[in-house]
Amino acid sequence: MVNHNKDQLNEIFHALSDPTRREIIHSMHQKEKTVSELAQPFDMSLAAISKHIKVLERAKLIERSVNGRTHLCSLNTESLSKATEWLQFYEKFWSNRFDLLEKELLEAKKKEH
Amino acid sequence: MVNHNKDQLNEIFHALSDPTRREIIHSMHQKEKTVSELAQPFDMSLAAISKHIKVLERAKLIERSVNGRTHLCSLNTESLSKATEWLQFYEKFWSNRFDLLEKELLEAKKKEH
Repeated sequence: MVNHNKDQLNEIFHALSDPTRREIIHSMHQKEKTVSELAQPFDMSLAAISKHIKVLERAKLIERSVNGRTHLCSLNTESLSKATEWLQFYEKFWSNRFDLLEKELLEAKKKEH
Repeated sequence: MVNHNKDQLNEIFHALSDPTRREIIHSMHQKEKTVSELAQPFDMSLAAISKHIKVLERAKLIERSVNGRTHLCSLNTESLSKATEWLQFYEKFWSNRFDLLEKELLEAKKKEH
């Protein structure tokens, strides 16, 4: 794994470790939103929400397109996939081990009969 | 989603945001290890590694069993799955949207001919 990948994984997992940031991701999964639309459900200042958005942008989890005075944020699922891929490696490894264990158990039971 | 789930997701993603902690997880994916076995590949004090292990334990990503003076650490894949499930919700949502878009495109092409 090259280092910039490592760094991006640090940023992605760090961004996801905060419940407000996860809610921001959740709130934009159906369609892109402006910064003020993203801020609306939270009892927080626009400055605080902007900080959270910046953390999400640094992790490349969201992308911002600027059209005049309107900033539209959209979800970048490629970055979410990077995190899932990392996690799935270990899940697959363990589910393979469980399959093997199950097979061995079944064979042991057959021998018993 | 209940709050303790939210808190655990915070802890899990925070634990995964550090490259040393991800390497610790990687190094124990094939078998359980003692704390000194986990520390061995790193150019770090045992105290520093212990801190990382505590963060992983708090997130329930690893479990420690104590047998006399030996502390054996093993991976808890259930916690890894919680993080994967959270991420996959958005991936699935987007892959469904892409499938829908593809279908619409194909139908538009058919009408053209």
